[in-house]
Amino acid sequence: MATINENILKLQAGYLFPEVSKRIRGFREKNPDVKIISLGIGDVTQPLAPAIVEAMKKAVIDMGSEENFRGYGPEQGYDFLIDAIIKNDYNCRHIDLDNSEVFISDGSKCDTGNIQEIFGLDNIVAVQDLAYPVYVDTNVMAGRTGQADRNGQYGKIVYMPCNVENGFVPDIPKQKVDIIYLCFPNNPTGAVAMKEILKEWINFARDNKAVIFFDAAYEAFITDIQIPHSIYEVDGAKDVAIEFRSFSKTAGFTGVRCAFTVVPKQLKARTKDGRAVEVNSLWNRRQCTKFNGASYISQAGAAAVYTAEGKRQCRQIIDSYLSNAAVIRKSLTKLGYDVYGGVNAPYIWMKTPDGLSSWDFFDRLLQKANVVGTPGSGFGPSGEGYFRLTAFAKPADVEEAMQRFTAV
Amino acid sequence: MATINENILKLQAGYLFPEVSKRIRGFREKNPDVKIISLGIGDVTQPLAPAIVEAMKKAVIDMGSEENFRGYGPEQGYDFLIDAIIKNDYNCRHIDLDNSEVFISDGSKCDTGNIQEIFGLDNIVAVQDLAYPVYVDTNVMAGRTGQADRNGQYGKIVYMPCNVENGFVPDIPKQKVDIIYLCFPNNPTGAVAMKEILKEWINFARDNKAVIFFDAAYEAFITDIQIPHSIYEVDGAKDVAIEFRSFSKTAGFTGVRCAFTVVPKQLKARTKDGRAVEVNSLWNRRQCTKFNGASYISQAGAAAVYTAEGKRQCRQIIDSYLSNAAVIRKSLTKLGYDVYGGVNAPYIWMKTPDGLSSWDFFDRLLQKANVVGTPGSGFGPSGEGYFRLTAFAKPADVEEAMQRFTAV
Repeated sequence: MATINENILKLQAGYLFPEVSKRIRGFREKNPDVKIISLGIGDVTQPLAPAIVEAMKKAVIDMGSEENFRGYGPEQGYDFLIDAIIKNDYNCRHIDLDNSEVFISDGSKCDTGNIQEIFGLDNIVAVQDLAYPVYVDTNVMAGRTGQADRNGQYGKIVYMPCNVENGFVPDIPKQKVDIIYLCFPNNPTGAVAMKEILKEWINFARDNKAVIFFDAAYEAFITDIQIPHSIYEVDGAKDVAIEFRSFSKTAGFTGVRCAFTVVPKQLKARTKDGRAVEVNSLWNRRQCTKFNGASYISQAGAAAVYTAEGKRQCRQIIDSYLSNAAVIRKSLTKLGYDVYGGVNAPYIWMKTPDGLSSWDFFDRLLQKANVVGTPGSGFGPSGEGYFRLTAFAKPADVEEAMQRFTAV
Repeated sequence: MATINENILKLQAGYLFPEVSKRIRGFREKNPDVKIISLGIGDVTQPLAPAIVEAMKKAVIDMGSEENFRGYGPEQGYDFLIDAIIKNDYNCRHIDLDNSEVFISDGSKCDTGNIQEIFGLDNIVAVQDLAYPVYVDTNVMAGRTGQADRNGQYGKIVYMPCNVENGFVPDIPKQKVDIIYLCFPNNPTGAVAMKEILKEWINFARDNKAVIFFDAAYEAFITDIQIPHSIYEVDGAKDVAIEFRSFSKTAGFTGVRCAFTVVPKQLKARTKDGRAVEVNSLWNRRQCTKFNGASYISQAGAAAVYTAEGKRQCRQIIDSYLSNAAVIRKSLTKLGYDVYGGVNAPYIWMKTPDGLSSWDFFDRLLQKANVVGTPGSGFGPSGEGYFRLTAFAKPADVEEAMQRFTAV
């Protein structure tokens, strides 16, 4: 008798974004003529930069030519892309990396979801309570948690509250934990972590032989030069941290699919009897066994992000998203809302009005303003009574959405 | 203390293909001027068909345009591709499928590797002993096996020998098993399964409430009209089987990355206490949580495989590979080797000469003929003393490789 992985049945309701889509579909069926403006799911709206389009066109043409056709690439990604990443994202910040420490993939959702596979089921996992649902859900599916309680919190997971009092940057846990997911600039709150904060986390991880999964998918939105883009800008991080980066928001690759993960060679985890094992080689084995490399065309496009033209063009796009964020912040503040984030991140985090629950505010905003956002409770119990807006819409749509907020 | 998943340490040596690459690199370093001909790793060599190139060029241009840009697609894939698949691969063989039963992915390696995640760790897994290493290795990593023995066989796995006596089609197991991996046309032996054989497996699975993972990645190479392309051509299969398909070999997508998996709605597996659960919804949840859809560009290319032009062009390419297979079969037979497969599959399976081990023959062939193949033992203990050649090289290279065989 084939049995199922019953851990999957522990998962609460639908995954956040499909549930959002479902409610939008329901509204659309009843109101087919209404123009909905989405400041919801974190998807980009601007087309790819011309330099990227050109690089991918060339790659496609190569794939149709006898001489330049490429079949299976390295599971870890092509060196032409890894070289560009190391030079432009790391060396310029005085971080040395070997090519074998960078793993190209088809997306950070896969990487942040799959990374837990190479760790034991007995690890105690700590997450920011306000986090991308994938961190917790993949640990639930793997069996690292108990059942969910009434707040949707799973047994055995250590939730680290992010709230107004701590500026949405969690306090160091009092208990021992083994795996720590951190995301800065944060999705959903837009909070950032200065070097001193990261240093505390690194020290905690070193003291506890813990590992930090550092999700830096939004580093391109950092405007304040004091804020680190990579956790490896802080001494000691290579001993304890894996870093996730993505081209999704940096270069509009949500439909193209390319990301990467840095696993330093010096990072060790342990067998139950305390023997140190190189995490890099475990991840390499996992990727070689279950992944066949990202599309050559996507990798060629990603490499173009690092050309002079590509950098300039992508910067322009990010700046326009940041200017959206500024408009949202300003408008909502003027309307009297409590608003956070949106300065070094594409996310604006707001308190719902009138004590409404996150989903009630979602429904009210959809019905009355025909604007879609993301219920804060979808990111963890601390998000109840909050709401996430994203800066990825077209500027005209952002302006219109803000006018509709005023009307509501 | 972060602990590792110690199951990964059970894995034997390197994953097959990286080990092959390593030995080739070693030879190249010592013999930089020698032309190596690879009939080894199952990678295609012919460029993409023009219809596919055109479709991907258009998709890239769309991604650079304000109106046609696409961000995140459905995790399950775009309907334009799913519709084409159902119509061309299934409806024409009198198989009905709903769009929600087809899941587009970035490759069959991922799908055949990840599918086990949604099943319990207590399932007894049966594999053809001669199989793609991913089936077993991913179960080892998940913890569904014991340690490897001296033959490289893992505890708890039921290995079903494939040998000359049974025509490389395994016998139905005598014991109860819960999950059965079958691959026809087979990698590495090129063996095929007629409907009557598949019917026996389906009956066995129904009787035992087992699930069949049917890897049909090579169905495009079937030349005999009696051989089923899909397991769903056989009555009752939808109750027990998941089918994996890939564009890698069908359309040269090894570097483009696109594949799909069919999970029929009526397929059920069970909780430990016997409650039936829809496997489709578990896989959907898994994909929504850990995967963000295949590249839009790759999906646009895959859809072009089903246009009139695309079909004709891909057929030509496959026919040329099949003609390579015929040349290899004929040449090796003439030289007195025992040769199997290569008629309805791109794989030729041969007995090594002089009682050589698979790796010894690999080394001899590399050193003396500068031809690369794949050691049969890499596919399971029954492969010891056998060797796999693939038909994916360029015709001129195949001819030359055959001459070099003659010289050895």
